[in-house]
Amino acid sequence: MTNRDRSPTSLDEFVLIDRVKGRVHPGPEVLVGIGDDAAVLEVSRHRQVVACDAMVQGVHFECDWISAENLGRRLVTANSSDFAAMGAIPRWAVLSFSVPSSMGSDWCARVHEGVISGLEEIGASLIGGDTTSTEGPVSLSLTLGGDAQWEPLLRSGGHPGDTIWVTGTLGDSALGLRSLQTGKGEQEEHRWLVQRHCRPEARLDWGQHLAETGLGTAAADVSDGFLQDLAHVARASGCAAEVLLEAIPLSSGYRSAQAGTAPHAFHVPALTGGEDFELIFTTSSGVEFQESPGDVGATRVGRLVSGSPGHVRVLDGDGLEVAVPLAGWNHFRSRAENSSGDSR
Amino acid sequence: MTNRDRSPTSLDEFVLIDRVKGRVHPGPEVLVGIGDDAAVLEVSRHRQVVACDAMVQGVHFECDWISAENLGRRLVTANSSDFAAMGAIPRWAVLSFSVPSSMGSDWCARVHEGVISGLEEIGASLIGGDTTSTEGPVSLSLTLGGDAQWEPLLRSGGHPGDTIWVTGTLGDSALGLRSLQTGKGEQEEHRWLVQRHCRPEARLDWGQHLAETGLGTAAADVSDGFLQDLAHVARASGCAAEVLLEAIPLSSGYRSAQAGTAPHAFHVPALTGGEDFELIFTTSSGVEFQESPGDVGATRVGRLVSGSPGHVRVLDGDGLEVAVPLAGWNHFRSRAENSSGDSR
Repeated sequence: MTNRDRSPTSLDEFVLIDRVKGRVHPGPEVLVGIGDDAAVLEVSRHRQVVACDAMVQGVHFECDWISAENLGRRLVTANSSDFAAMGAIPRWAVLSFSVPSSMGSDWCARVHEGVISGLEEIGASLIGGDTTSTEGPVSLSLTLGGDAQWEPLLRSGGHPGDTIWVTGTLGDSALGLRSLQTGKGEQEEHRWLVQRHCRPEARLDWGQHLAETGLGTAAADVSDGFLQDLAHVARASGCAAEVLLEAIPLSSGYRSAQAGTAPHAFHVPALTGGEDFELIFTTSSGVEFQESPGDVGATRVGRLVSGSPGHVRVLDGDGLEVAVPLAGWNHFRSRAENSSGDSR
Repeated sequence: MTNRDRSPTSLDEFVLIDRVKGRVHPGPEVLVGIGDDAAVLEVSRHRQVVACDAMVQGVHFECDWISAENLGRRLVTANSSDFAAMGAIPRWAVLSFSVPSSMGSDWCARVHEGVISGLEEIGASLIGGDTTSTEGPVSLSLTLGGDAQWEPLLRSGGHPGDTIWVTGTLGDSALGLRSLQTGKGEQEEHRWLVQRHCRPEARLDWGQHLAETGLGTAAADVSDGFLQDLAHVARASGCAAEVLLEAIPLSSGYRSAQAGTAPHAFHVPALTGGEDFELIFTTSSGVEFQESPGDVGATRVGRLVSGSPGHVRVLDGDGLEVAVPLAGWNHFRSRAENSSGDSR
């Protein structure tokens, strides 16, 4: 069968590439964009930042639960959230997209639209990639590049005594996912949580503010789960961390969805749920933020302390340690293991 | 089950990351490498080049046919071949790796070793990536970045009258794959072809020579198949192309493996087989190469001509057009379609 004989809804690699090429408006720094062997950029700064995040159907998403466009946007957010955690500015991206032909060209085009419009919103453009067939699940990987205009925020910059902050609210994404898994995603009271899961936003404004002002000492984004990501920051900074359970910022949607949950389980999605894409950051003690640089505020949740690097203790109002079920997402554990309640 | 309970051969995302981090020797330009939210580079030139290539099990490779280490190296070659086609210099890479837990940590470590050592050989280093589980086939995607020290070789720079060249020999990879598919990969006379398929090399030296001297007017690498990739160059250059069948460079291994093949089928793997990773390039007519800048020479195979952009004619010794079966690899055609003999 030649290309001429194929139905217009089937997939064709070169048609897909041409369609994407026609949709993208490359930034002025893009000298050669989609369609040659490689892309060529004229970068304005010598310090370049690169991040990479992948999403696999059946692991990170189900096509029944998220629209094609939101899937594309979510992939951009996962990457730009890493840029937020560095205080860096995204400029360009390349997309690797493996898709079974059964998904159809319209679905693929809407994923591309989500990626391209998500990039446009953060001032970046798609400059290339690779589209391949697969006999397995849909798999997407985005590499995001850009500038470090200021000294990058590292995970390793924290010191004992530094205040630990988190932007926005935690656990909404995990509860939105639970709503989808239990078939309640369409219900009115779950919509906001589902939106938080399916269309999260990266805190680029916070990250850039912290880097520009120099107020941030360390940062990471909440991708694997708050406690796990905080442990990464603490370990890299050679510190332990203490978190006050009552200080963890929770949305009203979270509180409603968790109403009636046993006290020991109430905070679990906030502490261990992944993909909130909020920022964890540290500052010297005494730092205040009069105004938020973005759409959400930041909340003091604890402090770095001397102790076993990476050890995180969660304390109740009496200063007693609270046992928290196994935290965070680790690939290669089964889903059951990742959502199990084993104590750690 | 907690991490502590898991057998040492099972996969753990963070153990994998730590192992890779310990193995990599980042170049001096890497300010922040593997282990933070993103990597930070100090680039020496404002012109940066980025390429991306993916490989999916069942589409691009079978684990029975290629060792884990060669798989990793092959992914590097697919990307660095794009750099060769631009005349660019690779510096850094990020790897996205989706793998089912059944593959085991040793296999993953050997894929990583292949990627890392393949990058080292071309002067580049792994600076980050994302490792995820999948319930489907193994999927790898590499984004390679680096410098354009000279004016990049584009596909669009050719003119009517330019000579078309190709490096090395064509079709060996397709015949090596056929040997593997037909269970003859272990036979002595097929080993060299299998090696060409499993451990190809990018022609970085040729690409850099052509860019540095300015002798190359256009270039692309042979990834989808010679005729198809040449058509991309011709189309981008607004030209048609004529190729002399007898000029196509064939290895002795190719000639032996194809001995006894009907005349109309003899050249098909060379003209349409993908993943040779040789370079197609054009120069002004009259250019000669006294010495090869690399391990292989380059052969004059035809010329760009005025005509329908992208139209490629294959001519026999009498100047008559030869009908060639459907050329080149297009994702989203079935394997049977991709290897079918339909005339185009």
